[in-house]
Amino acid sequence: MAEKSGRKAVVLVSGGLDSATALAICRAEGFSPYAISFDYGQRHRIELEAARDVARALGAVAHRIVPVGLGALGGSALTADVEVPKGRAPEAMGADIPVTYVPARNTVFLALALAYAEVIGAFDIYIGANALDYSGYPDCRPEYLKAFETLANLATKAGVEGGRFTIHAPLLHMTKAEIIKKGIELGVDYGLTRSCYDPDPEGRACGRCDSCVLRRKGFEEAGVQDPAGIRGRGWPT
Amino acid sequence: MAEKSGRKAVVLVSGGLDSATALAICRAEGFSPYAISFDYGQRHRIELEAARDVARALGAVAHRIVPVGLGALGGSALTADVEVPKGRAPEAMGADIPVTYVPARNTVFLALALAYAEVIGAFDIYIGANALDYSGYPDCRPEYLKAFETLANLATKAGVEGGRFTIHAPLLHMTKAEIIKKGIELGVDYGLTRSCYDPDPEGRACGRCDSCVLRRKGFEEAGVQDPAGIRGRGWPT
Repeated sequence: MAEKSGRKAVVLVSGGLDSATALAICRAEGFSPYAISFDYGQRHRIELEAARDVARALGAVAHRIVPVGLGALGGSALTADVEVPKGRAPEAMGADIPVTYVPARNTVFLALALAYAEVIGAFDIYIGANALDYSGYPDCRPEYLKAFETLANLATKAGVEGGRFTIHAPLLHMTKAEIIKKGIELGVDYGLTRSCYDPDPEGRACGRCDSCVLRRKGFEEAGVQDPAGIRGRGWPT
Repeated sequence: MAEKSGRKAVVLVSGGLDSATALAICRAEGFSPYAISFDYGQRHRIELEAARDVARALGAVAHRIVPVGLGALGGSALTADVEVPKGRAPEAMGADIPVTYVPARNTVFLALALAYAEVIGAFDIYIGANALDYSGYPDCRPEYLKAFETLANLATKAGVEGGRFTIHAPLLHMTKAEIIKKGIELGVDYGLTRSCYDPDPEGRACGRCDSCVLRRKGFEEAGVQDPAGIRGRGWPT
């Protein structure tokens, strides 16, 4: 992969476990990672602190936090005053589209990542989308990501001038346990990451939302202790 | 078109001449228009006041102004400190991609319009994109808009559940003069609109940037006096 060394890539970093792993994979594949995060009025704003820590720890060349007024449009449990579902079994999560779904979120985020890529001269975008654990989200499906890649090449000056954008979703078909094992192999410190959809005011994870349940199950199946719990960064053990 | 009456549509409204006409067409085609504008750190912020006036005057049911930190990414004459080209002939404009091009702008704006559409339950999005006067912008081409339509249907809960999104670009193949004639026929007050890429601090149009040149030429060819000049809203006569 030495020939890729120094080629820039944009990585969407949310502060969560998946995107931290995607960032580590991006670097391991020889790219210089440029991290981008979004301040979209999320209730769990400590995500953004986690995103900063993750970007720094995993050697991002730069980290941009882009404000996006998604909250102004309403419509989701992650930004509006809607009850986050708690205590659901993992099997129940993929059955329908959850209320935590934010309308067109990945489209908005990928569009901004594309803008950043064009500004810095990158043609590769990494996203931690996962089709197994989040099968309920339409914008985590392979056909969606492919359609975005097509769009990116038509949308941009860089694409028109002959560049080819690639959307990398290296976690797409991995289980949470596989993601965690891969990240640990690449030196990801999961103690820096946050997953909870509904942390308390001190930033402690609820332990019962879909995201907490999947994270706990993932660490159990990987046979690894979640370092976020050990380090007291808000993850109940 | 009575059968469409009351169906919601999202309309991108920039404060300019084209999007005002798109809004009027949207209403004339029987939709209830929901306007959306973007505060993206543009230098010409009076656009947003114009957008508000246009949305109100043309009967938008609602008008959301969404903050998007595009300026933080840099890379364009419209948001950064780059010289706006002046005094170019219309024939020279389409030859290459202008420095006023904002990376992935229409992708970001359409993504946010899609999010708004999903929140309010709309399946139709109107955009004032034009392939003649703005041939230099890749994200104003028909194939780009088609690709976004495909993406929208894959990206959303509404699309997965069987809805079909349509991107309407009614001005795509019209000349500026045709757009102006159509708008006047539909009662658009162009005195409310703004076009200049580089207005002075009082908001007066420069008269020499590409957008000013195209606007002047459009009114001349339409055989109509530009009411923005008459009303002293910053348009030099």
